[in-house]
Amino acid sequence: MEHRFSRSAESTMDSFIMSLVDVAAKPGMIAFATGLPDNSLFDIPAMRKAIDDVMAEEPYGALQYDTATGYIPLRKRIAERCRRELGFDTSWENVLMTSGSQVCFDLMGKMFLEHGDVMAVENPGYLGAIQSYSAYSPDFRGIDIGPGGVDLDQLSEAVSDGARLFYSIPNHQNPSGASYSEDVRKGVAEIVGDSGCMLIEDDAYGELGYNGRVGRTMKSMIPEDTVLTGSFSKTISPGMRVGWMVVPDWMVAKAGRSLEACCLQSNTFCQRVIDRFLQDNDYDAYLQGLRRGYARKKKVFLDAMEDNLPDTVSWNDPDGGMFVWLRTPEGTDAMRLYERLLEGKLVVMPGRPFHVRGGANTIRLNFATPTDEQIAAGMKVLGDACRELYG
Amino acid sequence: MEHRFSRSAESTMDSFIMSLVDVAAKPGMIAFATGLPDNSLFDIPAMRKAIDDVMAEEPYGALQYDTATGYIPLRKRIAERCRRELGFDTSWENVLMTSGSQVCFDLMGKMFLEHGDVMAVENPGYLGAIQSYSAYSPDFRGIDIGPGGVDLDQLSEAVSDGARLFYSIPNHQNPSGASYSEDVRKGVAEIVGDSGCMLIEDDAYGELGYNGRVGRTMKSMIPEDTVLTGSFSKTISPGMRVGWMVVPDWMVAKAGRSLEACCLQSNTFCQRVIDRFLQDNDYDAYLQGLRRGYARKKKVFLDAMEDNLPDTVSWNDPDGGMFVWLRTPEGTDAMRLYERLLEGKLVVMPGRPFHVRGGANTIRLNFATPTDEQIAAGMKVLGDACRELYG
Repeated sequence: MEHRFSRSAESTMDSFIMSLVDVAAKPGMIAFATGLPDNSLFDIPAMRKAIDDVMAEEPYGALQYDTATGYIPLRKRIAERCRRELGFDTSWENVLMTSGSQVCFDLMGKMFLEHGDVMAVENPGYLGAIQSYSAYSPDFRGIDIGPGGVDLDQLSEAVSDGARLFYSIPNHQNPSGASYSEDVRKGVAEIVGDSGCMLIEDDAYGELGYNGRVGRTMKSMIPEDTVLTGSFSKTISPGMRVGWMVVPDWMVAKAGRSLEACCLQSNTFCQRVIDRFLQDNDYDAYLQGLRRGYARKKKVFLDAMEDNLPDTVSWNDPDGGMFVWLRTPEGTDAMRLYERLLEGKLVVMPGRPFHVRGGANTIRLNFATPTDEQIAAGMKVLGDACRELYG
Repeated sequence: MEHRFSRSAESTMDSFIMSLVDVAAKPGMIAFATGLPDNSLFDIPAMRKAIDDVMAEEPYGALQYDTATGYIPLRKRIAERCRRELGFDTSWENVLMTSGSQVCFDLMGKMFLEHGDVMAVENPGYLGAIQSYSAYSPDFRGIDIGPGGVDLDQLSEAVSDGARLFYSIPNHQNPSGASYSEDVRKGVAEIVGDSGCMLIEDDAYGELGYNGRVGRTMKSMIPEDTVLTGSFSKTISPGMRVGWMVVPDWMVAKAGRSLEACCLQSNTFCQRVIDRFLQDNDYDAYLQGLRRGYARKKKVFLDAMEDNLPDTVSWNDPDGGMFVWLRTPEGTDAMRLYERLLEGKLVVMPGRPFHVRGGANTIRLNFATPTDEQIAAGMKVLGDACRELYG
């Protein structure tokens, strides 16, 4: 007898991203796809020291169970950073540790969405998060995002239609690289605040503004209606899966319970390693190094684009994060470019899957993963293919 | 305006377990509660060596993203162990790595349950897993479990009523310590096989039989209808959160997608550390050491029970795992004993929360966590309280 899958299993989208991790790992491939941080910016000696110290001084604590909501010293450190850098006060008890941000997205879907509920997402939006929400089969409303942020009229309409959640990346958005202007932040706060819609503010790239943070957090503007999610994946190590969410008081008990139900607890060992890393190093100086590293990498990448790409395609110049957003001519399907590039051993991320509507002529390029040499070689492949397809 | 929680957030049960982790961590407390492995049985030097080797030889791989379904060498190793020790063949592609078994439970609920669907659980059953399923608000049917396993008539009735899932721990069950007899295993296979009901076979304690494995895996008997879940939490380290599930072919694609949606991927670093640990050590000899250690600990614990407890209470003698199941007199409420023991600085786990029905007069005792000295001291407290309450 057949086993019937639930609606959730049937409605969960393919993300396309993780399949590219496999493709990109093939020998000889150059990857402008995926969202892998630059290996050369990992601080391996400092990580080894943090790991050694944890294993020398607190091995039993690090290997044992801990509480569901996370390692308290790390939560206190994050709460302090929220106060100092993100512009809002929070108790450490409102900081819940998760196995990466993806768990936060899933948890928010689980806690707030019923099948068919309206949910606003940026268009284009971060595919991994949208995949996560798709398990709750909401009625996705795409809110167009341009260089200064989201379209407020579209957001207003979605919220009027009863949107339960709005998932947003106000800083260095994935995939477009856009950041919300101050006016857009104010507009979002006005529309979402006290509307019954929760804002999920994904701050994954907030620390990676090349000239520092680019704007106020939404959490500082409408704290009761915002859950801010953060992660050490883009700054210290994605493989350690240490993320967190800051929730309003009224959510603490239920979020802790739902988190325990889905995950029991996140990784004790890696939480302690990250805490030790933060304790023993000057994190602000470390972040400055990362920002300089990514700004330099972006320049290498954009210079190579200038040198190699025809003017039939266009792109942006991001002020943070790790992505450049490429547009092929209107009416073209960038999936053809994607396939053509694969033949040349270059993997890029088609933009279409990030969209609720449109976006066929877009490509997301990650300049963090490839080395300078790979950038030079890959851009030749990209230039040739663009000229071949678009003239 | 108020934010409305989903049915899932409202229906998720409190687990009681994790709150006891906090209570048990208070200074001066003796813990017979929770399911913490014995610290003294962790092999710290071997773990340090595995960690050092990973960081020395493959730091970038360990700190970076990996595929959603897990680190392939470890999955191959687990598949080989399934063949050699668990009695069934599987491709490594059917082995999906998760951040502990709890993620498997959540995933199974998500993939198969709709609100109100019938789900069979052991009565008493493992509370953490039941909490996980409660987020999908099923109609729980408690299947009574005695020393030889579950009541087959009750299981048959639940399956006839359309049960979508049956969650079971056939070996050294948590909390009762019972293992299914060969006849019960056959009966379960007959009832569940090809019925449309999926069996979730939680093998968390399967490797901890003091005299080896106590029976065939259900996965070897009805492979297409069984998902076996395993974990290194009870054998190597719970803090590293490395669990896995073995799914039938027909589930691989959908399970991988749902797993990616909820978690993106599990911890790269810890998967590699565990893989290295397994590669560099004789795991069977290591497990033998654990089994001897827990068998010794159980003997210390049961001897102390004999010496201290009045014959108004009774208990079992488990052949594996880390729990003893205590019964107070019929008609008594063991929550009173629990509270009385807290005053004496002894934390135990009341049995009632593990039950869909009944169980008021039960207590789960963990002999793995306390030291021999704590066992001696704690058992005096337990003996005094039992005499005071029950004579």
